[in-house]
Amino acid sequence: MARVRPLSGYPEWTPSQRVVEASFIEALKETFRLHGFAEVETRAVETVERLAGKSDAAKEIYTLTRLNAEDAADARLGLHFDLTVPFARYVEEFQNELAFPFKRFQIQKVWRGERPQEGRFREFYQADIDVVARETLPAHLEVEVAVVMARALAALPLPGVTMRVNDRRLVEGFYRGVGIEDVAAALRSVDKLDKIGPDGVRAELVAQGVPATAADAVLELARISAPDAGFVEAVEDLWATTVTVDDVDGAQDELRAGLEALVALVEGVNAAVPGTAVADLRIARGLDYYTGAVYETFLEGHEDLGSICSGGRYDSLVAGGGFPGVGMSIGVSRLVSRMLGAGVLSASRGVPTAVLVAVTDEASRTGSARVADALRARGIAADVAPTAAKFGKQIQYADKRGIPFVWFPGDDGDGEVKDIRSGEQVQADASTWEPPADDARPLVVRTV
Amino acid sequence: MARVRPLSGYPEWTPSQRVVEASFIEALKETFRLHGFAEVETRAVETVERLAGKSDAAKEIYTLTRLNAEDAADARLGLHFDLTVPFARYVEEFQNELAFPFKRFQIQKVWRGERPQEGRFREFYQADIDVVARETLPAHLEVEVAVVMARALAALPLPGVTMRVNDRRLVEGFYRGVGIEDVAAALRSVDKLDKIGPDGVRAELVAQGVPATAADAVLELARISAPDAGFVEAVEDLWATTVTVDDVDGAQDELRAGLEALVALVEGVNAAVPGTAVADLRIARGLDYYTGAVYETFLEGHEDLGSICSGGRYDSLVAGGGFPGVGMSIGVSRLVSRMLGAGVLSASRGVPTAVLVAVTDEASRTGSARVADALRARGIAADVAPTAAKFGKQIQYADKRGIPFVWFPGDDGDGEVKDIRSGEQVQADASTWEPPADDARPLVVRTV
Repeated sequence: MARVRPLSGYPEWTPSQRVVEASFIEALKETFRLHGFAEVETRAVETVERLAGKSDAAKEIYTLTRLNAEDAADARLGLHFDLTVPFARYVEEFQNELAFPFKRFQIQKVWRGERPQEGRFREFYQADIDVVARETLPAHLEVEVAVVMARALAALPLPGVTMRVNDRRLVEGFYRGVGIEDVAAALRSVDKLDKIGPDGVRAELVAQGVPATAADAVLELARISAPDAGFVEAVEDLWATTVTVDDVDGAQDELRAGLEALVALVEGVNAAVPGTAVADLRIARGLDYYTGAVYETFLEGHEDLGSICSGGRYDSLVAGGGFPGVGMSIGVSRLVSRMLGAGVLSASRGVPTAVLVAVTDEASRTGSARVADALRARGIAADVAPTAAKFGKQIQYADKRGIPFVWFPGDDGDGEVKDIRSGEQVQADASTWEPPADDARPLVVRTV
Repeated sequence: MARVRPLSGYPEWTPSQRVVEASFIEALKETFRLHGFAEVETRAVETVERLAGKSDAAKEIYTLTRLNAEDAADARLGLHFDLTVPFARYVEEFQNELAFPFKRFQIQKVWRGERPQEGRFREFYQADIDVVARETLPAHLEVEVAVVMARALAALPLPGVTMRVNDRRLVEGFYRGVGIEDVAAALRSVDKLDKIGPDGVRAELVAQGVPATAADAVLELARISAPDAGFVEAVEDLWATTVTVDDVDGAQDELRAGLEALVALVEGVNAAVPGTAVADLRIARGLDYYTGAVYETFLEGHEDLGSICSGGRYDSLVAGGGFPGVGMSIGVSRLVSRMLGAGVLSASRGVPTAVLVAVTDEASRTGSARVADALRARGIAADVAPTAAKFGKQIQYADKRGIPFVWFPGDDGDGEVKDIRSGEQVQADASTWEPPADDARPLVVRTV
């Protein structure tokens, strides 16, 4: 049989790798639910018109064609490339059935027609949370969303994370204060700091017509960071030495609102999950639509992955305006793929089974099935040996799958259960015996 | 804002409808895991070549094109239209990493470019289980798979189900015995019994060259059904009165093997989930590749949906031969859609939240958050009111979302909790108070 080759950019997992991915998704859901987020699942397709609304994403869209299409009457449809576009459409479509502010989580696959490379997939899971309001979005929700994500990440068996946060008003107020007119263009340049370095950013800014002193101030601002309110004084000092003109169109008020919000954000997140948040004034986020908090999150020892969880506050979710909100998104597949690939995480086994019930001979298979059922009735995953082979073979069957216990049935539900790792074998009753908690279901373990 | 219209054939749910769908999927997973099935998730795309292997499905395939493709070098890819084709490819690709017999469940969306109509979707969930072996598949697994599915369905809050089972060897042995040469063609005709009636089937059989007496015998066989071994005598009587020639090429042995297997199947399923299985000799299943047990499952009062859970035993999962197995598949979206549409099921609420913690004023928001965190620490989903509005407004916020309890914080984690349905309000401690079990998470309830 010819070996089937994997498709580049479409990751797939062995059953035990899938245990890791599924446990991540399950843990995320549980954190989101504990915080009152409702689940939304949208269809995978949207109209191309809607998808292409963000024009720079257009090249990444996969469109659908029926293989033997007899008519061209179908609306042109494509696969969603993120969960924000479909959520915005969902909110518009279901607005009369939703209660606002609406807190939703959404964990689904998305598709991007990008050239695949390490950590870049064409099909992958994202996990998003957003809170959207109909009119006014209270500011504390910018803290709450970050706290929920910080807790969601802390509940996963990951290395440490650092959530780097900033506030658009702070940056925009500052930029305008130092005399920058095209704030969006300047932000896009600063967002490239990692790629092109300070000199590159400076050159771009100057090319945009930003005065050299203002460009220097922008780079100086980007150097400020603190895990607490300590950044405020640094920003105020920089402002005082740079901005010598009268206040430009409320820029200082905007800066102050941003400073205050950022203090609340960094302190709020660190109060909930100590040591997680850092106010980092270089965090820009390329996208135009953020208007308050912006977030990026980095994984200790895996900073090269880029941000694993990003987002921000926006004034309107939908293109026509309306529905202010705040949201964050985790790139689940990239995260799982790195953790598996780097050998950081693995599952204790690929099957849910805790106990294999042996079969002495085919005539007594029903008795073995009864033992398995007695275990299942108490939530213990059990399998019955597929053949009445020699017990050694049946133990091999369990061993090959990582099933920790083999049950040798006696009469009426009792029997003996063997821990095939230690070899220890004890009398047991299928209606009361429990495996150790760590053996009950596959466990995801940190190996590094 | 222009109303966004739904896309025909792509069902989407409100948050409380999604609770029903998600609870179905979760319950199915749990039953499958308890029985030792490992989860597999495949990518959504396969090569068109592989998808089109089953030629009659080709018209249903959605192919993918990058919107702004600069090269045509990509393999032609399409979305999977079932979970069998991708599973077969997965087994081929991962065969050296899997332990056989391999028991897997797989719950994913599939896409079909069909003309949408009631209960026919273009994007929908399927839930499949299969057991595949490398060489020989023990016969008892045909019973086991049916038992697992019967239990999975019984664990859902559905009306009663009837699993109608048959055995291909029984049917083929009988057909060959009465002189039918093209057994596959005859099976496809019998499979249309519901659509074209006995006269229509008879006409088709005769047109295929089947002698009239044999056609009558085929229709007679299709009338036999029994919830136990009672069908055996009826089949043997029919055989005795119809088959007067010498045994045709082992037809009688094949019939006998089928009879024996079908007795084991119907008795086995009914022993595990009483009243579920009926041996029904009209069950044909159109697909050629079944070689043993075949299953169809009908929902009481919703027989017009057709089979909600079907499958069978096959000799080879992969096109090149090899990997005999047995599997069944539930059409999850169709089932959920019907249950929601017919008002049979609904969720007690659309949010996970059991408790809304009220906020007296913004200065004390941190105290309210502490109460919520104390509840969450014990698995109780809690939300904090978004604004410090009048308590009446905050109670309305909870009421609108179906959140059953509102907590009015006192000092240091205590306070009072009100059941907003009964109006009952009691002193409570956030570190010990528990909601009633039925209120802890949204409940899916039978309303008919």
